[in-house]
Amino acid sequence: MKQTSDLLYQEYRHMLVDNILPFWLRYGLDRVHGGMYTALDRDGSILDTDKSVWFQGRALWTYATAYRQVEKNAEFKTACDSLVSFIEKHCFDPADGRMFFRVSKEGRPEIKRIRYVFSETFAILGFAAYSRAFNRPDYAQKAYDLLLKVEGYLNTPGVLVPKFETASIGFGLPMILLNTVQELRAALPDRVVEFNARIDGYLEQIKTHFVRPELQIVVEQCNPDGSLQLDHFEGRQLNPGHAIEGAWFILNEARYRNNDPDLMNLGTTMLDWMWSKGWDAEMGGIIYFRDALGRSATEYWHDMKFWWPQCEATIANLMAYSMTGKESYLTQFDTVHQYIKGHFIDREFGEWYGYLHRDGSLSTPLKGNMYKGPFHIPRMYLVCCQLLDELRR
Amino acid sequence: MKQTSDLLYQEYRHMLVDNILPFWLRYGLDRVHGGMYTALDRDGSILDTDKSVWFQGRALWTYATAYRQVEKNAEFKTACDSLVSFIEKHCFDPADGRMFFRVSKEGRPEIKRIRYVFSETFAILGFAAYSRAFNRPDYAQKAYDLLLKVEGYLNTPGVLVPKFETASIGFGLPMILLNTVQELRAALPDRVVEFNARIDGYLEQIKTHFVRPELQIVVEQCNPDGSLQLDHFEGRQLNPGHAIEGAWFILNEARYRNNDPDLMNLGTTMLDWMWSKGWDAEMGGIIYFRDALGRSATEYWHDMKFWWPQCEATIANLMAYSMTGKESYLTQFDTVHQYIKGHFIDREFGEWYGYLHRDGSLSTPLKGNMYKGPFHIPRMYLVCCQLLDELRR
Repeated sequence: MKQTSDLLYQEYRHMLVDNILPFWLRYGLDRVHGGMYTALDRDGSILDTDKSVWFQGRALWTYATAYRQVEKNAEFKTACDSLVSFIEKHCFDPADGRMFFRVSKEGRPEIKRIRYVFSETFAILGFAAYSRAFNRPDYAQKAYDLLLKVEGYLNTPGVLVPKFETASIGFGLPMILLNTVQELRAALPDRVVEFNARIDGYLEQIKTHFVRPELQIVVEQCNPDGSLQLDHFEGRQLNPGHAIEGAWFILNEARYRNNDPDLMNLGTTMLDWMWSKGWDAEMGGIIYFRDALGRSATEYWHDMKFWWPQCEATIANLMAYSMTGKESYLTQFDTVHQYIKGHFIDREFGEWYGYLHRDGSLSTPLKGNMYKGPFHIPRMYLVCCQLLDELRR
Repeated sequence: MKQTSDLLYQEYRHMLVDNILPFWLRYGLDRVHGGMYTALDRDGSILDTDKSVWFQGRALWTYATAYRQVEKNAEFKTACDSLVSFIEKHCFDPADGRMFFRVSKEGRPEIKRIRYVFSETFAILGFAAYSRAFNRPDYAQKAYDLLLKVEGYLNTPGVLVPKFETASIGFGLPMILLNTVQELRAALPDRVVEFNARIDGYLEQIKTHFVRPELQIVVEQCNPDGSLQLDHFEGRQLNPGHAIEGAWFILNEARYRNNDPDLMNLGTTMLDWMWSKGWDAEMGGIIYFRDALGRSATEYWHDMKFWWPQCEATIANLMAYSMTGKESYLTQFDTVHQYIKGHFIDREFGEWYGYLHRDGSLSTPLKGNMYKGPFHIPRMYLVCCQLLDELRR
């Protein structure tokens, strides 16, 4: 594996440094108003001038992490400074301190979501990474203050408008908070005890409510008492890419805790179950949704192949292999790796396509929109480069 | 055409009376708690026990209209009584009088939407049709009172939470209000002058803002001053099925106004432009979205074939043919008619599929969910039976 690891490391680093990161700097970074456009067509031309608040924080995480881990590229720093400044100037509502979801190119508010805190959690990721990359403890503090605000929103009835009148709990929240606090912990080592306690709480929620041995699945939603909602579409809906993303967050926590065996077991179990549900044995790729009981889907696009579940499956399998040495994870890693090379990478204009039909044919050739931008793909290359670098030594 | 019209009339009436209407009575009507389930699998088995509030009103419209126009079937009346009672008991929030979006099978609130008034407009449709079918002027009055409430919500800032911070106006609202008030006018003939004035207003909005000769399109959204939002996905997004539905509402208004030539011209122009944008010449069927400038779509499911745009195209072409006598409309009608027979009708279990991939293959075999139920399909057969009955005479 040593030699292969080295070749793969070169390939992944090349994709990251010479393809993905320059694509968004060249076409996405707004050198007039600051911040980053993500709604780009196949050739990088702008399809929508609005800016996704999620992606200002996510792109900040990406370029700051690349600066810290890969190379001290001045362009990465320019992008980070621009993103931080755009976020602070334009992405918070002065009326109540909450963040917007979409703003215009100049930073005028366009959409504010009232049910979710994801704009905030991605800003925390970005601030934490910025702090680490450029030795700015003030941004670690800002990230921490924002986490406390998010916790306040989540714990104060009436701040977030719930989607469902009867309480449901979702896997997405503890899973995204797990990753958010992991990143923040690295930026604020003084508070490690406090962050570990939070993480223990998220892990407990995930293990108790969402990892379900009775059906060998990870569910996305259940009742607060832990009972499944098998009479409902949402209660049966599996999102394999999402669960596999959660699996590698947990494996990463196991790595942080000296290969803690319980966490390794939890992470690999989630990966095993959801790989088996999510990989499309017939046509390849991780499918978007599956029904826990195999019943008919209500989401008409349930069988599409999106870019990001393939990224998460790549990371999770490589990480599981690097921790367990099991060949089956290496085989699975290679299977996704080949699928991505055969279907997602655009060899003419760079970057990846985002949206394929079930059979692998292209649905839309755009490179970005409000949900696709410089995050999952560069994160995959960043995390895999670290893992491959360890493996090749 | 006389002979063909008669055969088609028989075929459409047979589909309506022996296939579609019994399917939902048999599998959807909840004889325990009242109201109707719409989340049904291919064979009619229940996939989700929640009830769509939209569909309680829409199904009421369907069965009441079928009772009035097609046959005085006691089962239709049973369904209508059940739906009216379920709506009045469970679908309004006693706290503020607004309607829910989804309730449990027993009528417990599940989801309330804060941006839209469509639950209300479909209840108006249902109450108006119930009033006409069963000679219940009290329900015409209730429908009218609900319309006044809707107008109040729309005109009182702060009642509806707008999706966009900067004002945008949408085609959907005047278009759905046009149809709602047309139905209400038929139930409350004393108020015809008042309703006609409202309808003139909706038609003016549609003509001024959404029908755009400069690009030969009907747009879904624009700025309040009428300028297009061509820098944005939403501003360029065309929904041909939706625009064609609006076209036949306008043609229907022309019929009501003794074939008013301006309205006939408006309706057929909308149909002509949006048929040319929406019909997939390569693979058949009306496609879901198109981009006004032919740029890449952001909605990954943009190229799917849904059931309802085919219904709207069927009605619009037959109505345009019946009013203008132009053969091209008859050809287009037959083209959709054949596509529906070849792809949507389930000859084994009855009813239609709802969601096909672009190439016509099945995405999900279910018969209903929170968005598909007894409305567009039976309405298509109901309206076409009327038109064919006129044509065969």
